[in-house]
Amino acid sequence: MTNKTEPTVGLGRTLEGYEYRDWETDPDGTVRVALIGIGWWTSEMVIPAISDLEHCEATVAVSSSTEKAQGVVDDVESVEHGLTYDEFHDGEVADAYDAVYICTPNAYHLEYAETAADLGKAVFCEKPMEATAERAAAMVDACEEADVPLLVGYRMQTEPLVRYARELIRAGVIGEPVSAIGNNSQTLLDIFDDPTQWRLDPELTGYGTSVMDLGIYPINTVRFLLEADPVSAQATMTSSHDAFEDVPDERSAFTVAFDDGTILTATSSQNAHASTSLRIVGTEGELLLEPAFHMETELRIESGGDTITLEFEQVDQMSEVFAYFADRVLSGDEIEPDGVHGLVDMEALRAIYEAGETGETIELDVESYL
Amino acid sequence: MTNKTEPTVGLGRTLEGYEYRDWETDPDGTVRVALIGIGWWTSEMVIPAISDLEHCEATVAVSSSTEKAQGVVDDVESVEHGLTYDEFHDGEVADAYDAVYICTPNAYHLEYAETAADLGKAVFCEKPMEATAERAAAMVDACEEADVPLLVGYRMQTEPLVRYARELIRAGVIGEPVSAIGNNSQTLLDIFDDPTQWRLDPELTGYGTSVMDLGIYPINTVRFLLEADPVSAQATMTSSHDAFEDVPDERSAFTVAFDDGTILTATSSQNAHASTSLRIVGTEGELLLEPAFHMETELRIESGGDTITLEFEQVDQMSEVFAYFADRVLSGDEIEPDGVHGLVDMEALRAIYEAGETGETIELDVESYL
Repeated sequence: MTNKTEPTVGLGRTLEGYEYRDWETDPDGTVRVALIGIGWWTSEMVIPAISDLEHCEATVAVSSSTEKAQGVVDDVESVEHGLTYDEFHDGEVADAYDAVYICTPNAYHLEYAETAADLGKAVFCEKPMEATAERAAAMVDACEEADVPLLVGYRMQTEPLVRYARELIRAGVIGEPVSAIGNNSQTLLDIFDDPTQWRLDPELTGYGTSVMDLGIYPINTVRFLLEADPVSAQATMTSSHDAFEDVPDERSAFTVAFDDGTILTATSSQNAHASTSLRIVGTEGELLLEPAFHMETELRIESGGDTITLEFEQVDQMSEVFAYFADRVLSGDEIEPDGVHGLVDMEALRAIYEAGETGETIELDVESYL
Repeated sequence: MTNKTEPTVGLGRTLEGYEYRDWETDPDGTVRVALIGIGWWTSEMVIPAISDLEHCEATVAVSSSTEKAQGVVDDVESVEHGLTYDEFHDGEVADAYDAVYICTPNAYHLEYAETAADLGKAVFCEKPMEATAERAAAMVDACEEADVPLLVGYRMQTEPLVRYARELIRAGVIGEPVSAIGNNSQTLLDIFDDPTQWRLDPELTGYGTSVMDLGIYPINTVRFLLEADPVSAQATMTSSHDAFEDVPDERSAFTVAFDDGTILTATSSQNAHASTSLRIVGTEGELLLEPAFHMETELRIESGGDTITLEFEQVDQMSEVFAYFADRVLSGDEIEPDGVHGLVDMEALRAIYEAGETGETIELDVESYL
């Protein structure tokens, strides 16, 4: 892991010597993490991602069964304790970790965050924060009351290419941003061949599936790139496949207006060919990320009459975000995207689903949470 | 002009020996066209485009001034008569042409179509058909009553690459279509440095500017590609630049649901960097046209695990559509996109602008016009 990636070509006017870990303070110490929820993302993406980090290590695994948790202890050298969810709530081996990483079904995030806050542990919670905006707000309150850091897992915000794109926008390379166009789809039933999976169960996923799980990427990435917040939402959603009968958004298209005057329009589907892109069109140029939201290595930049494509080394996005989290926990510096930031997305999601249900434009009063 | 373009690579399962002029009947004769409205599009795009066509020639120029019309007579060998608009309405030299091509500000289309119909001439009308759906409906009525052919100028529908894309969709290459994502923007004031131009004047442009002029491309191209019709619309529109104070959509984002279950979402702006693309995502793959709506030469196809990009020779889109028009006028075969087809778009545009104004989802009763 280096702290710098060199684009193979460069737009002369911008950003020589770009250091993407501009947040790094390299503090002393190590953040010991309890991993809560041992699904494929934690097993295959997170555990490998943090195994080589300087300031972060997994020391505890928390799962539904003793066997599953013990399996992580057996397989991963740094992990010394396996707990059931009940044992975690009882505060067992609380001295063995400094922070928790919550990667369970959405509707369980709050209870683990609350216990972690009670135990004085820093919280890294996967996106979306919770099943509903109310529960996300409760998480914010719990962490604020306990004065523990809360990071929401938007790995795009520590993705070097995305951070570089934000610098280009800040430098005026595309002029004034005008509109954003995004799409994010996958074939959920090919990934998990189970129509009863939690992402299709409103009790566990929350408002729905496609926008909650996939549409949140263009929303949050645009917020990050434009440093803007959502003010209103429109949406069209449909479900026709049997497996999607309990959620409204097998397919969705939604529009989010932002407080800087930019308009995002995007589609998301959990039952379509895997496709991702994000385009930001400005008065003087545009940026195109494709693929976006995962594995991005190419950033196409049009500015005035010129078009170039920057190629980035692919980084491990989970390594980046965990390195950032550990840095912030150790340094005590302000953490972002924090709980309030994540809560704004939850309010946007609520608005989008309400818009999808009612057919009306739903205004957001984001100022009230900020 | 050949009748065939050979993609440099091919997706094995589809469309060997694709002939994009599959509509061609090669009838005897020539259609003599009166060009109505001698702006830059007619002068620079249309006159060169039809100069070499076998079955079509421009014989009359109709403009606001005798001088401008006479200028075309002087410059273009086949054009023998220059008329003012009044002279055209008076039926002067009506024996010198068989058809009219209407390329005036939107709100004038109807009067020329009505006169042409009265004179028994075939009508080729630029898109959008008119300033309002009501006026477009009147054009349909006038042409039906006079029993003259009416073609609406959607040059995408005779664009070889777009027609090929439709064949791929028909062949199931992307599975069942799920969603479409489009964008179409340009900097109108850089093209015409005049804030009083007709595209910014609601009396002449109609409901607005960006969706009328640019957003119509993703709408109509998706209709053509999916062989589907719009059933509802949502929209967000804003204008802040002084030149756009009389039109609602300096910037727009809109969503159109189609009767096949597909959802299109798109942005259009008349005050942004020129950018165009259209993506059709299906259950098994996707098609990407970029650039789209003008000068397209690349079609990216993802199907299952494969991705290929077909490269097409660039054709003159106006040559194609005029060749088609002449073929249909001479053969007497059914013409499409016809006036009813164009009227559906006008109803979609009306719905989009109403949605933009009210914030509500506007349902379309397309069946009633079909």
